[in-house]
Parts: sequence; C-alpha cells; structure tokens
Amino acid sequence: MSKALPVLEVFGPTFQGEGMVIGKKTMFVRTAGCDYSCSWCDSAFTWDGSAKDEIRRLTPEEVWEELTNLAPNNFSHVTISGGNPALLKHMGSLIELLHENNVEAALETQGSRWQEWFLQVDDLTISPKPPSSLMKTNFTILDDIIDRLTKAGRDGFTSLKVVIFDKKDFDYAKQIHQRYPHIPFYLQVGNEDTGDEKKTEDLTSKLLTKYEELVDWTMDDPETVNVRVLPQLHTLVWGNKRGV
Amino acid sequence: MSKALPVLEVFGPTFQGEGMVIGKKTMFVRTAGCDYSCSWCDSAFTWDGSAKDEIRRLTPEEVWEELTNLAPNNFSHVTISGGNPALLKHMGSLIELLHENNVEAALETQGSRWQEWFLQVDDLTISPKPPSSLMKTNFTILDDIIDRLTKAGRDGFTSLKVVIFDKKDFDYAKQIHQRYPHIPFYLQVGNEDTGDEKKTEDLTSKLLTKYEELVDWTMDDPETVNVRVLPQLHTLVWGNKRGV
Ligand code: SF4
Ligand code: SF4
Repeated sequence: MSKALPVLEVFGPTFQGEGMVIGKKTMFVRTAGCDYSCSWCDSAFTWDGSAKDEIRRLTPEEVWEELTNLAPNNFSHVTISGGNPALLKHMGSLIELLHENNVEAALETQGSRWQEWFLQVDDLTISPKPPSSLMKTNFTILDDIIDRLTKAGRDGFTSLKVVIFDKKDFDYAKQIHQRYPHIPFYLQVGNEDTGDEKKTEDLTSKLLTKYEELVDWTMDDPETVNVRVLPQLHTLVWGNKRGV
Repeated sequence: MSKALPVLEVFGPTFQGEGMVIGKKTMFVRTAGCDYSCSWCDSAFTWDGSAKDEIRRLTPEEVWEELTNLAPNNFSHVTISGGNPALLKHMGSLIELLHENNVEAALETQGSRWQEWFLQVDDLTISPKPPSSLMKTNFTILDDIIDRLTKAGRDGFTSLKVVIFDKKDFDYAKQIHQRYPHIPFYLQVGNEDTGDEKKTEDLTSKLLTKYEELVDWTMDDPETVNVRVLPQLHTLVWGNKRGV
C-alpha cells in the first residue's frame, strides 16, 4: 500500500469547466491536502478538516477500478485536482496507469512544489495564487518548475492560469505572464460566492458581469496580448454545487 | 488590386467566444460571400445582400493597416471569419503578411472548398453543417480536405466543430467525429435567437439550459469520448449584438 493516495472524490464523466482543456469530457479524481490556505479556496474541504472522515487511501489500481466502474468505455481523460496533488510523490504511478490504458491526465497545482512526474502530465496547469488569496508566491520555486518543464520540452503540455478577483490580482497576473511569456497563459474570473448553492441564476448573472469586466481590462491592456480569458463554465451552469 | 479581399468588418481587440482558441484575445476580419445558406446562419448579412453596400475591397496591406490602427501593439492573433473565407483564393497573402508581423491567424470554414493556404492557418476550424442547417455535406470534398491536412502534418493546428440544435444534429456530429477521429473535435450549442438583441438575460439563461442539455447528451454517450463541448461565450455575455 506504499503507493496509496489520499482521495476525497472520484466522479464523472463530466466536462472540464475551466482552463486549457475547457469543455473536455473528463473524469475527476480529487486528492486531499494542501500546503496553502487561500482566502477564497473553493475546495477548502480538501484541507480544513471538515471532510477528513471522507478521505480514503486508494492505490492507483483502486482509483482506476472506480473510474472504469463509473464510466465504462466512456472516458479518455482524467483530471486530477485537489487540494494540491503536487504534494503526492506517488501520483506518477496513477498517471502511468492511465497512460497504459490510453487515457490522458490533466493536473492542476499552484506551483509550490516540484515533482518529477510533472513531465508525464498531458495538460499541466500551474496556477500561482494572486494577492487576494493572501498567499505569497515563492518565485525561486516557481522559476525552477517552469525552467524544468521548458528544458524538458513540455511547454506545449503546460499552461499558467491566474484567478482574478480585483485589479491587484490583474497586475500580479501580468507579472506572471511577463516572467514566463513562452507558456500559454489563462486569466480566469474569480468566484466570490463559494458555498451558496441557492441562487444559481443570480450567481450566473454576477459571474458574467465579472467576466465582462475582466474581458474589458484584458482587451484594453497591451501588456496582456497573448492571453486567453475564461469564466468557469461549470459554475455558470450549475452554480456552486460540490462534486461538479 | 488583384489580391484585394471583399471585407465586411474589421474589429477588435475582443475575445474569441468559441472553438479551439476560446477566450483568446483576437482581432476579427469578416469577409463577404458564402456558398451555403444555412437556415440559422448568424451572419446572413455576409451573403444575403442586406449589407452589400458595406463590402469593401481591401488589399492585405490595407487590412493590416486597419488592424494596427484599431489596436496598436495590442494583438498577436487575428480571426478570419465569414461567410466562407475559403472562397477567397488570395487569403494566403493576408495570412503571410500576418505571419511576417508575428501575428497568428485563425480561420473558420464549413469545409466545402479546399485552398492551399489552409496549410498556413494556425488555428483552422472546419465546421461541417448538421441537418438542421438544411445544407448537405459533400463528403468527397471533406474527406479530401482532412486528408490533405493530415498528410501535411497539420492535425495539431486543425479542429472540427459541429453546431448542435437537436438530436439529429448530434447524430450527425458523432458521424463526423467517427469519420475523422484523429482531429480534435468540438461540439457547440446552437444559438436559436438570431437577430433579437433585446433580451440578453433571457437568452443567457436559455443558452445555458441548452448547453447543459448538450453536456448531458455528450456525457451519457460512449460514442463521444474524446470531445469538447462549448457554448458561445460572446453570446452569453453580450447576446446577439452584431460586431462582437
Ligand atoms: S492552492 Fe488551491 S486547494 Fe490550496 S488553498 Fe489555494 S485554492 Fe484551495
Ligand atoms: S456556412 Fe456559415 S456563413 Fe455560410 S450560411 Fe452557413 S452559417 Fe452562414
């Protein structure tokens, strides 16, 4: 059991609501644990103890079995999210198992920790956290991560994504984009209504207004030329329900 | 003036609302003329004569000048749309001019006509029209187009996109996906409210409901495994206003 992973959720098939493979049919595996505690974390249950009784230690083979039971012959892509899955040294075994079955793996991490298996991820999103998160980016580590990916020829499998709540976050995002101009860059609207599941329509309209604002900032600014600006599609459609 | 193109609109910067580079900051060049007349065409003014007085014959250099005047140093990507820009033999000169200026070119066509300059397009979307359009796909031509692109190593620069209004369209889309499984494949929600600019919020809610329906069909169906399902973001945000 040395290769077991702390897993909170296995679900799908559903669609990826954000980032570099937005819209893609995918399964989700959500791991427990994070080294950050972002002020607006939309999956705080992965690290704040509130769901600790739901954490299961599963081997890659057990994860694979759950995936194939959920969606027999109906997926070719798995998204590994957290928490911060980059805390888990043995994630590489799950990714290898997916590849052996001709399934691609996407993974998102804030970029606070390097793992050798980053080089195996088909869609790797590095998502440094802007000032509104109240977290501090360690640029020595982030530089090293981007450098290793680039040197290994992984730029085409990597993207940077920054979630934007306010103008200071936007300035931070521009700094990231200018520091690593060779990495595909995504801006994403922040979701301020975490936890409120009742008013999907109000939330949709609020998020679209926020998206339009972020679009305006981005279009007006010559420092954000080669970027993509996206909302969270799943939040537009389903609101803040967990497990989607 | 032999290389002049019939241009209806030059605008931007704005964001690409759909398809393979959804969310990307881009300029738009819209050409006049189409060999189809889809029942739900959202740019019928490009071919139905209603905007014929607005068509200007512009050389690639004149198009480039308009682009740089509109957005000095603020774009790295131009989307060429129509109508069907694949009717224009000389489009290659504009694409070359963009490349000389380190600007990428995206282009969408329904796949009814081959042009050698397809091989230069950075993001080429082939969008065959489903039954609800009342158009008939010529599969001899479409097979030839996909074959030429694949043989030239352009799969990574190409995508197929089918707009879906009903279940028959969905079946057609699956047929396309199975015929060309090696080409990245996008399903897009049809926009049934063409021309009505007054009720953006009602339209948004209707389109999100339609999107959710298409997501459900796609997630349930093992014949659509390696696909991406997307709405039109610009329609969600702005409704059916022209020129966005
Ligand atoms: S890095 Fe991600 S999972 Fe961790 S606290 Fe921040 S938003 Fe939450
Ligand atoms: S191919 Fe495109 S532009 Fe031509 S009629 Fe159909 S939707 Fe309209």
